[in-house]
Amino acid sequence: MVNVAVLGFGVVGSGVAEVLSTNEKHIGQKADGLICLKYILDVRDFPDSPFAGKVIHDFSIIEHDPEVSIVVETIGGTAAAKDFTQRALRAGKSVVTSNKELVAAHGYELLQLAKEYGVSYLFEASVGGGIPIIRPLNQCLAANQIEEICGILNGTTNYILTRMIRAGLSFDAALREAQANGYAEQDPTADIEGHDACRKICILASLAFGRHIYPSQVPAEGITGVSLADIAYAGAAGKKIKLLGRAFRQNDSAVCAFVAPHLVDLENPLSGVEDVFNAIAVKGNAIGDVMFYGRGAGKLPTASAVVADVIDAAKQRDSRRRLEWGPGGADAAVAPDSVRSPWYVRLEQGSKEELSSRLPQAQFLERAGAGAGELALLTGTDMTRAALDAALSGLKPGSVFRVLR
Amino acid sequence: MVNVAVLGFGVVGSGVAEVLSTNEKHIGQKADGLICLKYILDVRDFPDSPFAGKVIHDFSIIEHDPEVSIVVETIGGTAAAKDFTQRALRAGKSVVTSNKELVAAHGYELLQLAKEYGVSYLFEASVGGGIPIIRPLNQCLAANQIEEICGILNGTTNYILTRMIRAGLSFDAALREAQANGYAEQDPTADIEGHDACRKICILASLAFGRHIYPSQVPAEGITGVSLADIAYAGAAGKKIKLLGRAFRQNDSAVCAFVAPHLVDLENPLSGVEDVFNAIAVKGNAIGDVMFYGRGAGKLPTASAVVADVIDAAKQRDSRRRLEWGPGGADAAVAPDSVRSPWYVRLEQGSKEELSSRLPQAQFLERAGAGAGELALLTGTDMTRAALDAALSGLKPGSVFRVLR
Repeated sequence: MVNVAVLGFGVVGSGVAEVLSTNEKHIGQKADGLICLKYILDVRDFPDSPFAGKVIHDFSIIEHDPEVSIVVETIGGTAAAKDFTQRALRAGKSVVTSNKELVAAHGYELLQLAKEYGVSYLFEASVGGGIPIIRPLNQCLAANQIEEICGILNGTTNYILTRMIRAGLSFDAALREAQANGYAEQDPTADIEGHDACRKICILASLAFGRHIYPSQVPAEGITGVSLADIAYAGAAGKKIKLLGRAFRQNDSAVCAFVAPHLVDLENPLSGVEDVFNAIAVKGNAIGDVMFYGRGAGKLPTASAVVADVIDAAKQRDSRRRLEWGPGGADAAVAPDSVRSPWYVRLEQGSKEELSSRLPQAQFLERAGAGAGELALLTGTDMTRAALDAALSGLKPGSVFRVLR
Repeated sequence: MVNVAVLGFGVVGSGVAEVLSTNEKHIGQKADGLICLKYILDVRDFPDSPFAGKVIHDFSIIEHDPEVSIVVETIGGTAAAKDFTQRALRAGKSVVTSNKELVAAHGYELLQLAKEYGVSYLFEASVGGGIPIIRPLNQCLAANQIEEICGILNGTTNYILTRMIRAGLSFDAALREAQANGYAEQDPTADIEGHDACRKICILASLAFGRHIYPSQVPAEGITGVSLADIAYAGAAGKKIKLLGRAFRQNDSAVCAFVAPHLVDLENPLSGVEDVFNAIAVKGNAIGDVMFYGRGAGKLPTASAVVADVIDAAKQRDSRRRLEWGPGGADAAVAPDSVRSPWYVRLEQGSKEELSSRLPQAQFLERAGAGAGELALLTGTDMTRAALDAALSGLKPGSVFRVLR
């Protein structure tokens, strides 16, 4: 029998308790033995919960209980979560988490600590909610050199964009709807400004390319600059606007990663990923393109990924196949300045003649209800942002987004 | 160091040699040590191949070489492939295969044999080519009770349907194009009649639901009955025709599985899977819907999946996490007779009044260029095939396909 302690009885933590209990028999078969939830650590009590009797308030009980071999951290943030994770690992317990902020900020040192103490630090649920991506990237695609990762990594912003595209809602109206449906927080900053997607692409890039990539190294642009006009012009070009987290191998030792809205062609399967769904496309040198799709958040999907890691931790007590990557550093990531791509540009005021002389390959786009003098174009040729800015020198574009090739 | 022998130097076998050699350094890191290709068994010689020096013709050399710990079987079929697999397992060697026919026919007994001899029998490449599906189903979704699997499992037929839909080619013309492009065999029977998809859904169903499901228990209908008229009517209903392999939990001990063309709504992500791509959608009781997408065949994608299994076999020599399922039997699978769904029906000759009286919920479909008296409808209500046949009694429908809900 394997005893588990859950830290934090919020949405994901209570989901973990529920999945362990609902699928107890099935999970026991998979784990070659019973997995037993022994403690739930929270500052609150939950007298009406069926798990009330397991709730404790003092982490040291878990830390010093030799029967507990797996700790599930669903506290979030980098304060108590980090402290408890370190103490659990040092006490010889494997730690499973859904905490993307902690993994993105301190993954390298926590993985090293786990290695030092001969235990596992697992975080399948930190990216893509229930979608299996961390383990496939580490195992199933192990025969490949990964070339590129490109994903819709945040369900909140994908929901907002979907509602803008399908229902013609403004950004503000779509955000309010997302909040009303429980898909966006009351303070939606981390989602709409791209910080959440940034943490996730950092984790994927670290795992795929082998060095810790920190959020501070990854420029993140959110979707607050996406207007209904942009969506209409994208539609006229046969494309949808999606917030993408991207990372690609730049050379043998460096990675280029960033988060930004992109125009995605309708032929690309990422364009069909709607509502709160996430998808992660991976390109390997042998496998070509693969894509993983599913609910990127939610209580039970995320809990499902956590429990899969718990089963893994329970089964691998003898021979652990660790997730691992090397230390980060200033040279591990390069800015996307040198990344050439086609671009979409919208100007409140512009002249086709003027722009055609500056961008000779430009394809102009039309939309119904455009303001007088409004102008939108695709550059029609690949260029760096600096080259585009030079071509647009003196003009004030309303929107500038990359077009995904 | 781990020594590997490859049986059969065809498309996949030579791809395995190529991936092992191209990604040697990377794979060595993943496997915690060098993986060395020691032998290639084939009846032919390959004097111009860079691997010519490794080619042998006598399996017993591999069988009796204690240095070989992993055998890759890419022979195909169930004759020599089965014999060599059994002998390799009995000699204490793990076996990795892409041979779906063998796994679908004899998976249970070969898994039992592997267990008995304390080695692994792995077959990630047998379903979905390079797409990670076997391992995610076994590990990442381990916390879930799987409810349903639905997949586009055959690239050849998906290519043919895509070309019929997009280019308006007839079935015969699309098949010839697929053959010219190397996407279809000269004898395309196994693909176009659904036998290949049938073997794959058998493997997925056995793994997901826990008992061996044999191809003989799974009715398979191919795409030879799909006409351009059907494709036009489906389009008019906002749907695409796709060949699906489906399996769902019928009750605690039985599974219903079948292969047949379906009308799939454009909103369903499976409808966006085009050309030779495959996709497998899985529904779990915690995770909800997830989908795995990628190239379902091809030399390097398939080899990539084989090599991932080789790495797994190399690393897990101490504690194997086996794939496993129970024995099959007549009671393991139930026929889809009792499965209710909406249906699409096309008649060469029919009257709307007559059909409206027989199927009061029918929604009639229109297409340009329909012959006089031609008629197509969606039943608009869920029914079994027997109930539909009763309603159509005395009529001779040209096509009858399920509509995926």
